[in-house]
Amino acid sequence: MQRTPTADRPPIRPEVDSDERWRIRRTADDFDRIAETESIFALSNGWVGWRGTLDEGVPCGMPGTYLNGFHERREVSYPEGGYAFPLLSDTVVSAPNACLVRLWVDDEPLDVRTGTLRAHERVLDLRAGVVERYTDWVSQGGRAVRIRSTRLVSLPHRRVGVVDWSVEALDESVEIRISSDLLANERVPDRAGDPRAASVIDDPLTAERQRSAGTDGVLVHRTDRSAQRVAVAVAHHVDAPDEVATTVDCSPDRFRLTLTGTLPAGRRIALTKFAAYDCAPVDGAGPDALADEVVAAADAARAEGFDALLAGQREALDAAWLTADVELDSDVELQQAIRFGLFHLLQAGRPDGDRTIPAKGLTGNGYDGHVLWDTEGYVLPVLTYVAPGVARSALRWRHHHLPQARDRAAELRLTGATFPWRTIGGEECSGYWPAGTAGLHVNADIADAVLRYVGATGDEEFLAEAGLELLVETARLWHGFGHVADDGAFHIQGVTGPDEYAALVDDNVFTNLMARRNLRGAADAVERLPEVAARLGVDPAEVAGWRAAADAVFVPYDDKRGVHEQAAGFTGQAEWDFANTSEDDYPLLLHFPYLELYRKQVVKQADLVLAMQRCPGEFTAEQKARNVAYYEARTVRDSSLSASPQAVLAAEVGHLDLAYDLFAESVMQDLADLGDKTGDGLHLASLGGAWLALVQGFGGMRDDRELLSFDPRLPACIDRLAFNLRWHGHRLRVTLTGAEARYELPDADGGTAIELWHHGERLRVAAGEPAVRPMPPVPDAGPEPSCPPGRRPTRRSAGER
Amino acid sequence: MQRTPTADRPPIRPEVDSDERWRIRRTADDFDRIAETESIFALSNGWVGWRGTLDEGVPCGMPGTYLNGFHERREVSYPEGGYAFPLLSDTVVSAPNACLVRLWVDDEPLDVRTGTLRAHERVLDLRAGVVERYTDWVSQGGRAVRIRSTRLVSLPHRRVGVVDWSVEALDESVEIRISSDLLANERVPDRAGDPRAASVIDDPLTAERQRSAGTDGVLVHRTDRSAQRVAVAVAHHVDAPDEVATTVDCSPDRFRLTLTGTLPAGRRIALTKFAAYDCAPVDGAGPDALADEVVAAADAARAEGFDALLAGQREALDAAWLTADVELDSDVELQQAIRFGLFHLLQAGRPDGDRTIPAKGLTGNGYDGHVLWDTEGYVLPVLTYVAPGVARSALRWRHHHLPQARDRAAELRLTGATFPWRTIGGEECSGYWPAGTAGLHVNADIADAVLRYVGATGDEEFLAEAGLELLVETARLWHGFGHVADDGAFHIQGVTGPDEYAALVDDNVFTNLMARRNLRGAADAVERLPEVAARLGVDPAEVAGWRAAADAVFVPYDDKRGVHEQAAGFTGQAEWDFANTSEDDYPLLLHFPYLELYRKQVVKQADLVLAMQRCPGEFTAEQKARNVAYYEARTVRDSSLSASPQAVLAAEVGHLDLAYDLFAESVMQDLADLGDKTGDGLHLASLGGAWLALVQGFGGMRDDRELLSFDPRLPACIDRLAFNLRWHGHRLRVTLTGAEARYELPDADGGTAIELWHHGERLRVAAGEPAVRPMPPVPDAGPEPSCPPGRRPTRRSAGER
Repeated sequence: MQRTPTADRPPIRPEVDSDERWRIRRTADDFDRIAETESIFALSNGWVGWRGTLDEGVPCGMPGTYLNGFHERREVSYPEGGYAFPLLSDTVVSAPNACLVRLWVDDEPLDVRTGTLRAHERVLDLRAGVVERYTDWVSQGGRAVRIRSTRLVSLPHRRVGVVDWSVEALDESVEIRISSDLLANERVPDRAGDPRAASVIDDPLTAERQRSAGTDGVLVHRTDRSAQRVAVAVAHHVDAPDEVATTVDCSPDRFRLTLTGTLPAGRRIALTKFAAYDCAPVDGAGPDALADEVVAAADAARAEGFDALLAGQREALDAAWLTADVELDSDVELQQAIRFGLFHLLQAGRPDGDRTIPAKGLTGNGYDGHVLWDTEGYVLPVLTYVAPGVARSALRWRHHHLPQARDRAAELRLTGATFPWRTIGGEECSGYWPAGTAGLHVNADIADAVLRYVGATGDEEFLAEAGLELLVETARLWHGFGHVADDGAFHIQGVTGPDEYAALVDDNVFTNLMARRNLRGAADAVERLPEVAARLGVDPAEVAGWRAAADAVFVPYDDKRGVHEQAAGFTGQAEWDFANTSEDDYPLLLHFPYLELYRKQVVKQADLVLAMQRCPGEFTAEQKARNVAYYEARTVRDSSLSASPQAVLAAEVGHLDLAYDLFAESVMQDLADLGDKTGDGLHLASLGGAWLALVQGFGGMRDDRELLSFDPRLPACIDRLAFNLRWHGHRLRVTLTGAEARYELPDADGGTAIELWHHGERLRVAAGEPAVRPMPPVPDAGPEPSCPPGRRPTRRSAGER
Repeated sequence: MQRTPTADRPPIRPEVDSDERWRIRRTADDFDRIAETESIFALSNGWVGWRGTLDEGVPCGMPGTYLNGFHERREVSYPEGGYAFPLLSDTVVSAPNACLVRLWVDDEPLDVRTGTLRAHERVLDLRAGVVERYTDWVSQGGRAVRIRSTRLVSLPHRRVGVVDWSVEALDESVEIRISSDLLANERVPDRAGDPRAASVIDDPLTAERQRSAGTDGVLVHRTDRSAQRVAVAVAHHVDAPDEVATTVDCSPDRFRLTLTGTLPAGRRIALTKFAAYDCAPVDGAGPDALADEVVAAADAARAEGFDALLAGQREALDAAWLTADVELDSDVELQQAIRFGLFHLLQAGRPDGDRTIPAKGLTGNGYDGHVLWDTEGYVLPVLTYVAPGVARSALRWRHHHLPQARDRAAELRLTGATFPWRTIGGEECSGYWPAGTAGLHVNADIADAVLRYVGATGDEEFLAEAGLELLVETARLWHGFGHVADDGAFHIQGVTGPDEYAALVDDNVFTNLMARRNLRGAADAVERLPEVAARLGVDPAEVAGWRAAADAVFVPYDDKRGVHEQAAGFTGQAEWDFANTSEDDYPLLLHFPYLELYRKQVVKQADLVLAMQRCPGEFTAEQKARNVAYYEARTVRDSSLSASPQAVLAAEVGHLDLAYDLFAESVMQDLADLGDKTGDGLHLASLGGAWLALVQGFGGMRDDRELLSFDPRLPACIDRLAFNLRWHGHRLRVTLTGAEARYELPDADGGTAIELWHHGERLRVAAGEPAVRPMPPVPDAGPEPSCPPGRRPTRRSAGER
């Protein structure tokens, strides 16, 4: 179906309208997957997030307007409790919904499931940063109208979102009623029973203020337990025939602007709704002050005008894409998908302030809106190189919550700080401690993200202000937690690694190696910033203790099989009976008890393989190859966090087609809804992981040494791969073909140069002096590792380029 | 204070009134521990249980009338659920309370906390099987009355309980009002927050019928989810002056008989309340039929009369004590306590039918009234020898629930049967699977109890009807669960042993050795009953598989330290920092997370030591001595299940004073309320464990071979220890002094003889021909093992004999 531009405004980007590589499109065919579409079409600026609901609110999978950090706390109980089990849990709750524009045609409500839908399409434009909607609908009474809308959540103006909406009478005049709502405490469907879904709190918001003036309104609410206040204002711009009457109605949970009248054939009513949001602790700005703030922001947005906001949105995104874009000359769907993923990563955070990025961003309430290790493990490794300011902001958020992490460590009778496995407000919210609190590696993931950020940016100011303290307190955790056994080695026992089909294991390789990196990174940083370290109470003896522990970290290895053990004893466990596991048995966690999963050699998600990705220098090439073969055969990928590290390592050891197919699975996680959970929100870690699969997998980029290194290798089905990395303020552009690798600094001033490794050769790349090297032949890696029956990723690598 | 007999009836046992060794006494000093007193004074016949509440219902810790197996189910939820996590849990609920007799004196309610208490005493008489109560009370208005009552729950008549109550005006005439209630849905205090307390369901019973006739009444109720029906009738016998008026009132949740009138000085009103109980599935007997049944039972009891019931009670107990009594010439308090424990064990079950014994018996609602492995692990090893019919009944109960255990195994994707960790109705009710479902050893405990029962009784009929199937299905569980690893050994991984400060461990020695016993015991039994086995689908190949697995069972041993590992890797774990653990930190589970407890060498309760008790032939004497020393130093006894096995092994390896002190701790668990939990009900396992400490510890009795064996050894503080064991129908009496051990068959007919082992010598004991052997000297066991600081049991062994 052809996209139809707004009647009175030229198309946003007429020149690329046909470029599907920058657009995501959904039609009426997708109504039965409406929740998924709402996640895919979610818009955000890292501060406000709107799910991509239809303007008229029906059909609806799950409405949602999220403010980063805005949440309620709810009591949780346990059939059998235990010491330090959290008794309150954070749950994201919707701010009042400003997106609703309902329409009645001759008193019949617009619902695309009724009447006749002549045309329907929605498009997410990845460069314009908007969702456009176009619908031609004939009511059951036979009246034809055209509804069009454009939504944006402003990247430059963090408080602002806009719905630009219009209706046109197509064939004959119609009686029209439009209600533009701002609605609090909207009902959210409860999907209890699925542990991955959100917990629903009924009526989480208590009304404090409601005001209207002209066609504008504002609502102020507060939460009870989390003691947060939220204010939302809407300012309308209406363009309607004179016959159309306007009324407003304001009650505690709803402000409504209603337009009624006769719309002659061929005439339009256009309504632009400028919404502004703010939230604050209840002991901060009072309700009136907060109301004034959002009213002013909405007014200012209206004064700026929708066209100007559109232009500003485009400008912000052009700047972001300059570094973030990846060109993948291969499968058009995957080119589109990697951009889709990067778009959502870019809009999930923001460089100002100290907000982080929840596992679902602001696209849904899955995992209760919690922040998990996904952020430091899968999202920040991307943003550090394409939007480093956003990575810094997320790490500042961790630093901001350091007091709670220290308190949690004290509660757990541990040293240093223990960051929560899942949280919004900073307190531990894990309700199943063996796969939550015991996942101590989140602390090393945070330290790793600090080290990567500082390494990639040279941001010593951040290190001094926040990074060092994060490194020190997490190093203290590991030093106190581990112990030296008879063998003289430093052991970390009774923790849970990334693989959630194991728990409470001893000497998980990933955890141990990441703890080593954490201890050494903290020691190095302390020595670089001795004065700051002294203020944190670190003395040389403590640092020496960290180094000694790091040097002695135990790494279990099975000599007989010649592979590392995911954790001590892993390779001695019983094998999973894949022959008697049917396709319907996946995901295994829904069909087998932990009692079975934990004690057998079945891997939900990359764990030892992830250790090889994060700590590449700890393994020989031969070990990597054998480990990949061993763990590929036992990894079922019941987690969306798995395909990416598997892709990176498959590429490294030379199984490029497998790597490509794993990349494809990672990048298509949400667009193809592979886990059937996209309706709860997007899997940002999987989308970030897709970038890592390209850049670390095929680009062969590693960042564990002082300089970036690249061992690029392309599968036959990729003609060209180009990406950019921000490195100490410079944009390094890498372009790979089957024949050559090209490194350049396209924006740098004369005299600027950086050094890097290419397949073991140290290169210098200077402004105007690209380095170009041939791609070495990919050595024969032998037969592709076997996957568990039925679990190989879909084969896309075999297709034509 | 002198016990005062009933005015018009001679004291029940005038000849032993002063024998404190058969009596438990509580006075007004104990009102601040009223809940504890209610548990201690609980009466039961294994079918009906009454908590020892005061007749007038105040003050009250927790009222409770329990029918064995009567329960409700309640929904449970998890902050983060998982496959096969139980979503319903059984909870014991009270049947209507027939014990209440309230009194008003000049309109002032009797409450021992008000007015003046001239005298107050309650006595549990362990031979009469009654609780007597004697109170002289002066109201705030200055009126003096004497209240006296005797309660019994009839051992011969399983449905019947009686309260024989009277009030006497002492100094002047008083206006009296008495209400004798039958009360359903009585409020129970909710002590949420303590994981060991019960869950409270408000108003669990729905009224179906209520009838009254004369001074008698009956109530019929049902539960909702568990679909059980309960009927309770009361029949009154009233002896009162003519001036006293009688009224009755009957409503859905209450039948009440009220007596009002003037009681002249020196006159009495006597009220005997015969209560009868029954319960059935709602699809069984209808409400009217059930009502008729209990009315008839109450009428019959009244017709028999209280004195006859008293006599029958005494007769039943005399018969029970003949085998059950233990004479301990040492500390009178401990003599009293061991009888107290045996009394509660004897009244907790009954030989007819197929009822089992919950962890708290019918004495309280602790652990939700659940049956745990305590029964097979600690209670049946006693009852098998002192009341074998009760043990058989409890094992039949397991067999009755085999279908649910098979279903649970299928749900868990395991083979054979998986019995619940905790249950009332047979379904798994564990809400924390690492310390519940993962405790698979409960299945081996059941098999062990079957083998012990059959070995001690020669009851082949039971074996054929029920025992064999229990053995086969549990053997199938182990055979399917374990796996043979590279080392050729059979490993059982990812399970939880007895010690709850560890979870999800590999090759827990207790579990592995008990599984071996289970596998071999099943194989032996199959070969003895081939036809029955064939009907169960067992073929020789399956049996061969069991034997091969049993032979290959892995037993982890630390060569360097010369000790067994509680589970693989245990001795390599970090040590607990006892030096920095304060007394207030105990029990550790309330002050440290599992994250700390599980990964360190701290033991809540005997585990490896229990393995040495149950499977003595698997360890050498030297290993036992070293293991005792090693684990004693790391065992904190935060569980009441621990002292007994520690006592048995301490005695075996020669630390007799330590064994005595551990025995004392076990036997005083409830009388001294050592865990501050006696108010929730008695710790039957600890009370059973006390008998094991004496018989297995100082008697040195072991039953893992075909004949009983004894290696008796007494600490200096015991002058004489005599106990009886029922062995293949005969009563074997064992009398130990410092000088000699005497074995005899006091009741046997001529020609009867049994063989046994005494310190390695095979003896023949025949009717009229006791075997007497000297006690060998106790070899020097070296210094007493050290306990964790502050955790040694109270030293009682040092006292004079």
